Amino acid sequence: MRIVRHISDLGLDGEVGLVPTMGALHAGHVALFRAARAENDTVVASLFVNPAQFDQQSDLAVYPRDETRDAEIAEQEGVDVLFAPGPDEIYPAGFGTWVEVDEAGAEGTARPGHFRGVATVCLKLFNIVRPRRAYFGQKDAQQAIVVRRLVRDLDLDIRIRVIPTVRDADGLALSSRNVRLSPAERERALGLPRALAKAAGSADPIAAARAELNGLTPDYVELLDLDGARILAAAVRVGSTRLIDNVLLEGDLS
Amino acid sequence: MRIVRHISDLGLDGEVGLVPTMGALHAGHVALFRAARAENDTVVASLFVNPAQFDQQSDLAVYPRDETRDAEIAEQEGVDVLFAPGPDEIYPAGFGTWVEVDEAGAEGTARPGHFRGVATVCLKLFNIVRPRRAYFGQKDAQQAIVVRRLVRDLDLDIRIRVIPTVRDADGLALSSRNVRLSPAERERALGLPRALAKAAGSADPIAAARAELNGLTPDYVELLDLDGARILAAAVRVGSTRLIDNVLLEGDLS
Repeated sequence: MRIVRHISDLGLDGEVGLVPTMGALHAGHVALFRAARAENDTVVASLFVNPAQFDQQSDLAVYPRDETRDAEIAEQEGVDVLFAPGPDEIYPAGFGTWVEVDEAGAEGTARPGHFRGVATVCLKLFNIVRPRRAYFGQKDAQQAIVVRRLVRDLDLDIRIRVIPTVRDADGLALSSRNVRLSPAERERALGLPRALAKAAGSADPIAAARAELNGLTPDYVELLDLDGARILAAAVRVGSTRLIDNVLLEGDLS
Repeated sequence: MRIVRHISDLGLDGEVGLVPTMGALHAGHVALFRAARAENDTVVASLFVNPAQFDQQSDLAVYPRDETRDAEIAEQEGVDVLFAPGPDEIYPAGFGTWVEVDEAGAEGTARPGHFRGVATVCLKLFNIVRPRRAYFGQKDAQQAIVVRRLVRDLDLDIRIRVIPTVRDADGLALSSRNVRLSPAERERALGLPRALAKAAGSADPIAAARAELNGLTPDYVELLDLDGARILAAAVRVGSTRLIDNVLLEGDLS
């Protein structure tokens, strides 16, 4: 596996699959790497903690980073190129172009500017890597909605694949932020996947999820539409850690 | 020359040069076509009156349109493909992704949303046509600044060529909007190129241009920087027609 810091050193061949990541890799990312490995000639994983998508600088400051371990995992999963640029490679001095995707509600409302940062860095990565396919996790369902809209609206010839959420044995969706939870917080956090799972069969899934959150106060509980798939999504704060999760109600992610 | 209405029918080969236009073609566009013809295998001209870049709907309503004549001119100048999509091809139902380039001052301030519309349609055309080079006129100097910034910031591999302004014998810069001027208005409008030409050698070109405008009230007179080239730009309103113009003070357009 090559580790590449500079855009000009990428030199990619064949049909490329891109897995954009912010590092702190876990089994959720591994599922993306495996899907990409199965479908492309060349697999590129990007590792870039994108400052533009953090609405809270305090969250950016404590975002977990361990490139050595990330590189080992990526190599093990057959990634060909780990693109790990510094911030100045992506946002050089004088940078001033932003992509805004209309996406109100849920994360779009809870985290102002977040999707602008996501859309901008994804478009840049697409232009830099020129993938045929790009891989995103269902856990960030609204991110997948935003990226699919971006691809369609800006006439990009890229297939956006959405891979099902990977969960720990206790049901908590894998997230790089889970490492920040104390054992007691983790126990409380389980209220989120449990509420979503119980609400999934209900006639009023939003009300049902709210009723089952077991004392957790949600930022939101909302229904999302991902190209026809109906998703029940929620965000909660447990201590100082914000967690999101969702379940598919109908349709498929494709 | 092929006239193409749908993105899926483009089927382009070789190194492509793109000349984005809003039609109502004149000798300024012809200079762009000739530059593109000299440097590329395939020349594509787009003809699309982009609603998103009109800050005034009244201006959009009266924008001159004559596709038959435009197609004749394009064919005569060796354009291979005239891409003339309808509005729904570029902005289908549900469209909601916009590109914002930081560019304050001059047109950016005078026409809110204008450069957002320009940047978005240019990025779409670049993704649709995949040109190696794209051609813009110096008359819209700030548009060239915005498009060069977009290309650099979004990591596009496209050379943006800026071709000198073409003028009528009396000095007025060619513009599709000139047809709206009455003979008396046209005489008054000449105050704009004359003021810019006289101011070009002055120690304080902004003050000099303002002093020479011969009764025209400018929207702005400003200095612009186009990759190191220094440009004196101004906008005036003559009757109901708004005109822009500029002169190069130092550097070159390349």
